[in-house]
Amino acid sequence: MKKAVVLLSGGLDSATALYVAKNKGYRCFCLVFDYGQRHRREIGRAKKVASSAGCQIKVLKIALPIRSSSLIDKKIKIRQKCSPKDLNKIPSTYVPARNIIFLSFALSYAEGLGAEAIFIGAHAQDYSGYPDCRPEFFRAFDRVSAVGTKSGVENRKIKIFIPLLNKNKAQIIRLGNRLGVPFELTWSCYRGGNRPCGRCDSCYFRARGFREAGVIDASLK
Amino acid sequence: MKKAVVLLSGGLDSATALYVAKNKGYRCFCLVFDYGQRHRREIGRAKKVASSAGCQIKVLKIALPIRSSSLIDKKIKIRQKCSPKDLNKIPSTYVPARNIIFLSFALSYAEGLGAEAIFIGAHAQDYSGYPDCRPEFFRAFDRVSAVGTKSGVENRKIKIFIPLLNKNKAQIIRLGNRLGVPFELTWSCYRGGNRPCGRCDSCYFRARGFREAGVIDASLK
Repeated sequence: MKKAVVLLSGGLDSATALYVAKNKGYRCFCLVFDYGQRHRREIGRAKKVASSAGCQIKVLKIALPIRSSSLIDKKIKIRQKCSPKDLNKIPSTYVPARNIIFLSFALSYAEGLGAEAIFIGAHAQDYSGYPDCRPEFFRAFDRVSAVGTKSGVENRKIKIFIPLLNKNKAQIIRLGNRLGVPFELTWSCYRGGNRPCGRCDSCYFRARGFREAGVIDASLK
Repeated sequence: MKKAVVLLSGGLDSATALYVAKNKGYRCFCLVFDYGQRHRREIGRAKKVASSAGCQIKVLKIALPIRSSSLIDKKIKIRQKCSPKDLNKIPSTYVPARNIIFLSFALSYAEGLGAEAIFIGAHAQDYSGYPDCRPEFFRAFDRVSAVGTKSGVENRKIKIFIPLLNKNKAQIIRLGNRLGVPFELTWSCYRGGNRPCGRCDSCYFRARGFREAGVIDASLK
């Protein structure tokens, strides 16, 4: 059975990416990162999602060299109620090089496992803000995989799949719904509270996505 | 004063790269990784090298997702006495995606610090074996820095300098000697012993380099 490494965050996008990978016939090995994020709650959710999909998961603890993001430094404010003009600005939740770091570990894991693919749940709506969610970035990283790894130079390049890249949140939710993604287990809120705050970008996009998809968000029940 | 992040390993190449960066007028912030390597001794050496250069150093502890290298798994044999025909084979000391991971953290650190450059001591002799030491890899990673980071998309791309790329060991030693690199503090041996084993690739290339450069290796005194 062909193997894939799937980057999980505990959110609904990466959970959907996992179900897409399973659906394509991959045996999936999930990775989630404990990087000092405020919303550490997402790690437990990632574990539940992996387990519901019958997959292994590894939690990698990493220390980022510097705290320069509101996602890891509680002194920096998280933006509330995103206005259309803010959408083109990189928000304070941007963590320098985060996806680059995550994909590097995924590449290392995939090479060690002999996996042929990596799945990441990045998508169109993210890349209005985060540089490391844009198609150009994934093309550049794909080249790194081709020329910077043993498997790459031996013509067994590990492929990076970004199955949600061109979808908006509502389309992702519809796809996940069809694939049986357990949305009730997922966590999107950037804040570390007991319940989603309902006001950060991530809560905002989630709520709007469910509304537009005409699906009930079972996590709020 | 312009800032740079310098990847240190405790070996003589990265120490020389640090002195090149200092010589170019950068205020240097060093990074060294504790990734479960057998030769953890190199971490202490990296600290000494940074301190002798008057620079800060951060030790980042990371857990690699899988042990598939003789550098981290003592059950895998480290090659001894490298023969010319072995030189084109990727050795068992290859750690999947190691430089990709290290550069990703360096990029994150540089972005957080507002540094404009990263220095890495990779060089020509390494890339006979390690894919992530080849010019194509660095070109690909440079593109990642350009399109995958906030500084990149805002036209303040963090530059990756590989000052030793086209040098052999003897040339590096001559350069380091001129710049006052404290070679006696550096550590190259892949094994974890109290003294260099004298037989692994790394010891072999170091000894040959000093001999060819006509410099005495003060670390062996």
